[in-house]
Formats: sequence, structure tokens, C-alpha cells
Amino acid sequence: MSLICRHVEAMDGYVPGEQPHFPDMVKLNTNENPYPPSPRVGEVLAKADWKALRLYPDPVFAKVRSTIAALHGCRPEQVFVGNGSDEILSLVTRAFVESDGTIGYFDPTYSLYSVLAQIRDVKGKPFALRADMTCPTPPADWSDVFIWTNPNAPTSLMAAPAQLADFARTFKGVLLIDEAYGDFAPTDCMALATAPDNANTLVMRTLSKSFSLAGIRFGYCVGPEALIGALMKIKDSYNMDALAQAVGLAALEDLDWMHANRDRILATRERLTAELRKRGWDVPDSASNFIFAEPPAGQSAEALFLGLRERHIFVRYFPGPVTGNRLRITVGTDAETDRLLAVLQDL
Amino acid sequence: MSLICRHVEAMDGYVPGEQPHFPDMVKLNTNENPYPPSPRVGEVLAKADWKALRLYPDPVFAKVRSTIAALHGCRPEQVFVGNGSDEILSLVTRAFVESDGTIGYFDPTYSLYSVLAQIRDVKGKPFALRADMTCPTPPADWSDVFIWTNPNAPTSLMAAPAQLADFARTFKGVLLIDEAYGDFAPTDCMALATAPDNANTLVMRTLSKSFSLAGIRFGYCVGPEALIGALMKIKDSYNMDALAQAVGLAALEDLDWMHANRDRILATRERLTAELRKRGWDVPDSASNFIFAEPPAGQSAEALFLGLRERHIFVRYFPGPVTGNRLRITVGTDAETDRLLAVLQDL
Repeated sequence: MSLICRHVEAMDGYVPGEQPHFPDMVKLNTNENPYPPSPRVGEVLAKADWKALRLYPDPVFAKVRSTIAALHGCRPEQVFVGNGSDEILSLVTRAFVESDGTIGYFDPTYSLYSVLAQIRDVKGKPFALRADMTCPTPPADWSDVFIWTNPNAPTSLMAAPAQLADFARTFKGVLLIDEAYGDFAPTDCMALATAPDNANTLVMRTLSKSFSLAGIRFGYCVGPEALIGALMKIKDSYNMDALAQAVGLAALEDLDWMHANRDRILATRERLTAELRKRGWDVPDSASNFIFAEPPAGQSAEALFLGLRERHIFVRYFPGPVTGNRLRITVGTDAETDRLLAVLQDL
Repeated sequence: MSLICRHVEAMDGYVPGEQPHFPDMVKLNTNENPYPPSPRVGEVLAKADWKALRLYPDPVFAKVRSTIAALHGCRPEQVFVGNGSDEILSLVTRAFVESDGTIGYFDPTYSLYSVLAQIRDVKGKPFALRADMTCPTPPADWSDVFIWTNPNAPTSLMAAPAQLADFARTFKGVLLIDEAYGDFAPTDCMALATAPDNANTLVMRTLSKSFSLAGIRFGYCVGPEALIGALMKIKDSYNMDALAQAVGLAALEDLDWMHANRDRILATRERLTAELRKRGWDVPDSASNFIFAEPPAGQSAEALFLGLRERHIFVRYFPGPVTGNRLRITVGTDAETDRLLAVLQDL
């Protein structure tokens, strides 16, 4: 008999977007921020008390927690912090889904969610997007947990908070709203998480995108104290290392820097969208830091993906019925966008 | 119906040793290293390319992996790296224990293991130590995973590698040898993990103790490629942040520094042990960076714990039949040890 669990043997594992290293590359494949994090991050590291790393970090990340609580006008007990949103997602599948339970998500959406259901050895229940790639409201009893990415990936489209509020009211399970791209959207659902009568909704953010800190792992979620308490119970004892706590705090205390980067990215996004549309591409109005663009009839998305790749321009291509004729392109700097547009013209 | 899983509702969660903050305190309660990590850690942080933190870290920690592989004379595919040993322990309970499976460990041992069984919602099967606190060999079918801490905590005692080799040969499940304190012991079991015919044994290390890096979260384990591959499949996509990878690497490349600190700690441990024995304490021969000491007849371990605490000297006290008449005392600096000994004399 195998020593490895049957469901683990059977699964493939999540394949993250590749992390190539070419000096001349344009990396638009994993929705990273093209601009550096706040200079305060550099200061924190330069003056870090590295000798104190001999001590364990604060297991309940009190300072980080209260800073995030103040940011969103809630109590620290309503905030959980994870080693990346990845850790929070994994904990949610273990705290709120029984062994015979189900995890719901849209199809298509962030491809990690179905892998998380496999890892948890429960049924993943994809709910199909509409033909125009917008999100229909799932039935109230669709699953024990529903992960609603808003704005959604790879579509870049946003559902109105009112639609999510309606769903949260009727949904019988735990609703996790993954706002990884929320800072790039015109509005967000945080008010659902902090509402006094909220019992089932968590809103999750990450410092990986808008705060330019994918390199440290720092995600957080806000919601009812009972749900947050359950996550605290089952997390690793010291899940947030001391440097991540210090660096994350520095970034969260410099919102102006994040907003300035975001505004630059939004301006570039509009320019990229307009230029591709002029060339006959179908580019939905993105509410995130990437676009999900369909080349004009006669051009193959996959061929363009490979052609770009050969010239060290990395974008993301997802084979499949809804996604296979589009490219997901992270919004880079203006120079990177110019190079992308020039090479696309060539191809 | 509750939104939280029944087994999560029912459990209490692990309570880590307290992290008090008094300027004058002597902190001997969580087995931290009293000496700072390698100065290379400081250099790495001072010259860290903080702007590059906008990018995701290497999801398969290739450089770290190959460094550890070289250290132990195995292939990188035999090495897994986790956000602390905590993460590895949690992954092991999910990769190698089916929902109706069992997790074995000694009683007493590191108290986290029973909590991990609760989190995983499977049966924890404690196997009692002998009356002299040494480890008997469990039956071959005791559990699906057996976690053998060697040296054991809180006893500080070490089982001979030959005993573990015998157990590994007969044991039907996955044997995880937790060598958190292995660098303080006269010998270790790494050869069991790297042996060509090993199919079921993992040996785990951490940078938290001997390498003075509890503040970053960095644990690793070595073992058969199939088991390591299963852990890689179910881990969070980017479980090791970029700074932890860089800092951990710097520490691993400066073994001389770690060895020098270890030698100082061992010398202090012998001095502390000898002095307490002179005062009538029972102090078993420790193979770790702490001692597990029983005060002379007529003195209560709990009362001493509280008395030390009042004077800001923090040690660990575990109530219970085997542990309740002893104190677990981390070996600190010589000055800290002098203060401990003086205050104990007073009490």
C-alpha cells in the first residue's frame, strides 16, 4: 500500500506561472506590480535588528493586526493574517469545509481553487460564468464555501458589491471574497466584511499586487470574529515571520505610495486597452492590473503567446473553451507596454 | 448549523510559550538561541534588493534546496523546505494520513503534535515513555505517521540512531524524525533519511534553534523522493518568501558560526547541569539546548516556575503526571545562567 494519501497521489498540483530570468525580459505573466514597494520597506530592512531574529515572531501579529483593523474600521479580532493569501485559502478549506463538504468557485477563475479542493479531498463545484464572462449569482446552497474573486481572474471583470451583498445574505455557507486585485477596482466589498450583522463573509486582500510585495508572503482577511477565531486556532503557531510582519507594516503605513503606483498602472492599462482595441482586439473593461484580451479574428492567442515568449515577453495563456482565445496580460510599465505593443504589431 | 467544522469548534488550539517583553527579562522558555545568527544574515538584509520584492519568490526554492542537498549528500529532490517546521508537520498530516488514519507520538513530547491530530481531525495515538523518560520502540502498526522527536522534548533525552533505524525498518507508516534539537546532540539520524533503500523516513531540521533564526520561519526535511514530491504537491504555491530564502541560505553557508554558538551553549549546559545536581536537583543528561530538571524533594516545580516568573525569569512548566514536577529550562548565556542560579538559590 502506498504511504501517500490516495487523493494526493491522484492529483497533479498547482503549476504557478513561470518565473523566468532573462536580463532583457518583459514579465507580464503573474500580475506582479511593475513598480517597487514603498521605500520604507528598504529602510525597514536596512535598519532591521537582525540579531533579534534569534527570537520567535509575535504568534498573533498584534501590531499588524491592529494596523489593518484601523485601516478598515474594525476590531483586531476581525483580522487574520497569513503567509500569503495562499495560506488563508488553505486554512479556509480546512476550517469551514467538512470532509464530505464542497468548495464552490466560478469557471473560469483563479485555477488554484480547484487544486485546493483536490488537496482538501472534497468536491470542487465550479459555477459557470455567463457567456459575456460576467458572474451569475450562485444558488444559496451551492457549496459549503464559495470563493468569489472580485475582480475575477483571468477575466479582469468586476461584479458590483450589491450583487455580492445579495448573495452573502442568502448564501448558506462561508463566502470568501478574494479581493487580490481590489485596489485596482473602482469599488470593493470590504463593507460586507465589517458590517455588524455579517456572520458568513470574509474579504481577503494581499500585499502581493497593489503593494508590490509578492516576494514577502502577506495576505489578510477581515470578517466575523467567530470565523477569524477558527482560522487562528488551526494556523501554524508562528505563521508570519518577523521580517514579513515588519515589511508588511511599513508598506501598509505608506498608502500614498501604493496609490501613486496604482494610478500609474491604471493610466497604462487604459492606454494599452485603447491601443489594442484600435487594432481590432476585444478587450473587456478591466477592473484589475491585467487585461484579458482576444486578438482579432484570424490571429491565434496561443500562437501570439508563443511568439511573445520567444522574444522574452511573458504573458499568460490558459487553454480551454472560454479562455483559449485570449491572453492575460499584466499591466507593466509604460516602456514594457510599448515593447509589448511593438512586438505584437510585428507578430 | 455552525459554519465552522465540528472538530475545529471542539478544539482549543495550540498555545505557544509566551513571548513576554521586559527589558530586564531572562527568557528561557521557548528554547531560543541566546546568541545572534551569523553576521551574514545582517549583511544579506542590509544589501537586500528590496525593490525586487515586487516579484514572487522562487516557488521551488531551488538554490536553498540544492544547498541543503549538498550539506547532507543527497539530491535536491529529496529536500523539502517549509515556512518553519510547523508547516512541514501540518503538510505531513495531510499528505500521509487518510481521514480515517492515525498520528502517533510519544507521551509526553512536543505538545503541538496532539493539536495537529485535532486540526487534521484524526486520532492522535500517544505512546507512553518509560518511567525513566526514555523512548520505547512503538509497535510496527501503531499509526499511519509517527513523529519521533529526537532528542525528545521536554525530556531532553536522545534515543540512539540504531533504535530509530530498527523502528524505521519495521514501521508500516511514515516515520518523521523531528531533529529540531539535533545540532545539540552527539549524533543524529540524517543517514536514515538519505539511505538509498529508505522509503518511509523523513528527518526534519529547523533553523530556529541552533541557527538562531526563530524569527524567520525556516524548516526543512530530507527523505525519499516520493514522499518529498507529495509534500511539494500540496504545499502553498509560494510557501517560502524571498527574504527567508536569502537569510536561511546565508545562515546555512556559515556553519562555523552555528557550531561556535552550539559549543558555547553545550559548555553552559554542562555547567548548569553540574551546579543544579550539586544542589540536589535531578537533571538528566541533556542532548539538546534545554534541561528538564526536577528540584530536590520538598520543592515544588510549579512554585519555582511562578517565583522565577515574578522576577522576570521565564522558564516552561508543563502540568501533568510525568512533567509536573520538573522545569524545562532553555540554556541561555552564561550571565543569564548565573542570574537563574542566583534567583533559584533565593527562592
